[in-house]
Amino acid sequence: MSDPRKIVLDESRIPRNWYNIVPDLPAPPPPPLHPGTRQPVGPDDLAPLFPMELIAQEVSAERHLPIPDSVLDVYRLWRPTPLIRARGLERSLGTPARIYYKYEGGSPSGSHKPNTAVPQAYYNAQQGVRRLTTETGAGQWGSALAFACAQFGLECEVWMVHASYDQKPYRRSLMQVYGATVHASPSAVTSAGSKILAEDPDSPGSLGIAISEAVEVAGSHEDTRYALGSVLNHVLTHQTVIGEEAIEQLAAAGETPDVIVGCTGGGSNFAGLTFPFIREKLAGKIDPVIRAVEPEACPSFTRGIYAYDFGDTAGFTPLLMMHTLGHLFMPDPIHAGGLRYHGMSPLLSHMYELGLFEAVAKGQSECFEAGLRFARTEGIIPAPEPTHAIAETIAEAVRCRESGEEKVILTALCGHGHFDLSAYERFMSGQMEDYVLPQERIDEALAHLP
Amino acid sequence: MSDPRKIVLDESRIPRNWYNIVPDLPAPPPPPLHPGTRQPVGPDDLAPLFPMELIAQEVSAERHLPIPDSVLDVYRLWRPTPLIRARGLERSLGTPARIYYKYEGGSPSGSHKPNTAVPQAYYNAQQGVRRLTTETGAGQWGSALAFACAQFGLECEVWMVHASYDQKPYRRSLMQVYGATVHASPSAVTSAGSKILAEDPDSPGSLGIAISEAVEVAGSHEDTRYALGSVLNHVLTHQTVIGEEAIEQLAAAGETPDVIVGCTGGGSNFAGLTFPFIREKLAGKIDPVIRAVEPEACPSFTRGIYAYDFGDTAGFTPLLMMHTLGHLFMPDPIHAGGLRYHGMSPLLSHMYELGLFEAVAKGQSECFEAGLRFARTEGIIPAPEPTHAIAETIAEAVRCRESGEEKVILTALCGHGHFDLSAYERFMSGQMEDYVLPQERIDEALAHLP
Repeated sequence: MSDPRKIVLDESRIPRNWYNIVPDLPAPPPPPLHPGTRQPVGPDDLAPLFPMELIAQEVSAERHLPIPDSVLDVYRLWRPTPLIRARGLERSLGTPARIYYKYEGGSPSGSHKPNTAVPQAYYNAQQGVRRLTTETGAGQWGSALAFACAQFGLECEVWMVHASYDQKPYRRSLMQVYGATVHASPSAVTSAGSKILAEDPDSPGSLGIAISEAVEVAGSHEDTRYALGSVLNHVLTHQTVIGEEAIEQLAAAGETPDVIVGCTGGGSNFAGLTFPFIREKLAGKIDPVIRAVEPEACPSFTRGIYAYDFGDTAGFTPLLMMHTLGHLFMPDPIHAGGLRYHGMSPLLSHMYELGLFEAVAKGQSECFEAGLRFARTEGIIPAPEPTHAIAETIAEAVRCRESGEEKVILTALCGHGHFDLSAYERFMSGQMEDYVLPQERIDEALAHLP
Repeated sequence: MSDPRKIVLDESRIPRNWYNIVPDLPAPPPPPLHPGTRQPVGPDDLAPLFPMELIAQEVSAERHLPIPDSVLDVYRLWRPTPLIRARGLERSLGTPARIYYKYEGGSPSGSHKPNTAVPQAYYNAQQGVRRLTTETGAGQWGSALAFACAQFGLECEVWMVHASYDQKPYRRSLMQVYGATVHASPSAVTSAGSKILAEDPDSPGSLGIAISEAVEVAGSHEDTRYALGSVLNHVLTHQTVIGEEAIEQLAAAGETPDVIVGCTGGGSNFAGLTFPFIREKLAGKIDPVIRAVEPEACPSFTRGIYAYDFGDTAGFTPLLMMHTLGHLFMPDPIHAGGLRYHGMSPLLSHMYELGLFEAVAKGQSECFEAGLRFARTEGIIPAPEPTHAIAETIAEAVRCRESGEEKVILTALCGHGHFDLSAYERFMSGQMEDYVLPQERIDEALAHLP
């Protein structure tokens, strides 16, 4: 057993700092703007929505943000996460490539989302906040926040996209097990939701609408704040524990990565895996190819434009400079609900413009085929979101088979698919759709940029 | 972080041997009998059902059975499993007790079952077997075997209790993702199933019926064998990796267990956790109280008798000397499907008669209440089966609060509850039944002992 299949670290090896990449970039990202004045938003604009500590992290110029002991203590429930050598997958592909995946599905809610949910709940609790609101699509973020709120005694109120509320009753139950209140969105509880219901009582909802509802409730209650599961700088920074551990684990295996692949929706998993490696790359220590993978049905990097846009549908958020398909763009109902977001993290968008990584888009069938192969060879059922990264990992490994190159490929398996088996069933029964996105739909949505 | 929340071991610490407790017992367990002759069954009687290596393990007099490298290589995907200090649960109870749980839910199929599914698939593949058949109730065993068969290129055919087949479509999909064929049991594929369907076309099925079907198909095909997920000696022996790791982990934490608690259905999880500790107890090194927890709706230890009985409903198996409620006993439909078995492992039954551990029974509501508390404090949603062990762990910790004793309590969290959220939903909405089992139902079933 000298050639490891899995590299685990003792809990004393959990990173003590989150890594903030902003000060290491050749240029700072453009700031968020107030939609009325088009002036940069300041801490006071954000204070109704976020606690001061998170606002400070959002604009921090410090490379290293210390992780509080109380957060570390909860991280210890599942961190460090394992880095696993995908020997079964390699064998099935007959590739000389060596494939490693960092597995985040062992967290209480089954994805990487608790990495940021826990500190967000902690800082809110420290500030005396009583309740957190949020939105959730497929449910991974909502269940992570519900778990984190239970750890720090906060109430948690989640607006879940109505279509998912009906299709994924077990994700909803999971949030309720953790003690959260879950609303189908659009809901009659908010004016944003009521307005949409008045126009369309059967609205299936969208992530953009659910964000509007959660933000409205947080903004109008003194004891309530809002939590976001991706997109913002502080969220991406919290996720860097993934990459920091992976660096130590790859080194323990004596490996240097040649290719790093991650899926992108709002960008938090991709950033968490890659930022520490990009730091090493900027310092000239390593030179891997770094590649984001997004769904063809929601291709903000590969077909969106780089512009200021709203983060939500109703236009409650600041304007964010990002790759966007337009805040009114409604993605087709692919099963990777966590990747169905019209925009992209402003920080990642800026880094993409700087040429720090590349991006590709994948169709749904190719991704589920990759997920099925992964399950049968590695045992773990991937959530639909990371099947995008797995599909590209497989494509890269097949290229290595053809070229004979022994590349080291690193990817992130950011969540398990235990709540997504109906999607696998659709795929296995040959009923899975591959959506074609006509350029006109993108153009039409982009015509409504603020 | 000097006071650990979680003790992890490097993969080099996976045990190299399974521990067979039989040679360490003061008396050997009574042998299985042929139902016709009432003579002990020999290897030839079992050869149509099991490969020779497993038959040899079933009757082995060796203390230590070496784990083959190919099995270790698959174990490395998730083993060693973590031992976690339940600090959140302790705090919520205000107990001076220190509670540790060994978490097996991180395996590919989410329970402890792959610990034996993997070697069973391996030994069958080694012998040139092409296909394995089995039964499954709630689906934990079926999905474990499906995973293991995918690892060694075997076909897998599962008879799933019809009621569960309908109620747990996602467990069924999980088996199919791993490539298995799943039948609702009773099925028209077998004569045992056809006979029952002729009498009752709407039969909800039972574990006993599903065993009869899987055994019938294996027994009548040269290239097919049968795999059982609990009850038999070799199955219990494979599970001892749990307890062996736990001994090393508790020692690393500087702890000696005072109370060890596990749930029992067929007995494999309880045996896996406790056998290595019972070895130490028999050697006079430690002296913990060891306690099995079974459901009030299926109380084979606490209300069954110790007698020879069939392992299945149709009477295809050898006669097993065990604690039984009668092979025709039909347990009420509690959500802990893995504990709904009329009998008990003969080896554990024998050890219970020897006074090596004690047993208690728990009602369903107390268990789900314990599961909900555990989820909110520890983050992990327990499967319904281990909520029994958690309920007794909590009861013990509350007794410690009252007495002031700082006991060390060890338990096994043998699986997660991601596929059981509809049961939690029933509990949270106040609709969960607590079944009362009248003595007449037990007496009636016991009147039909062979």
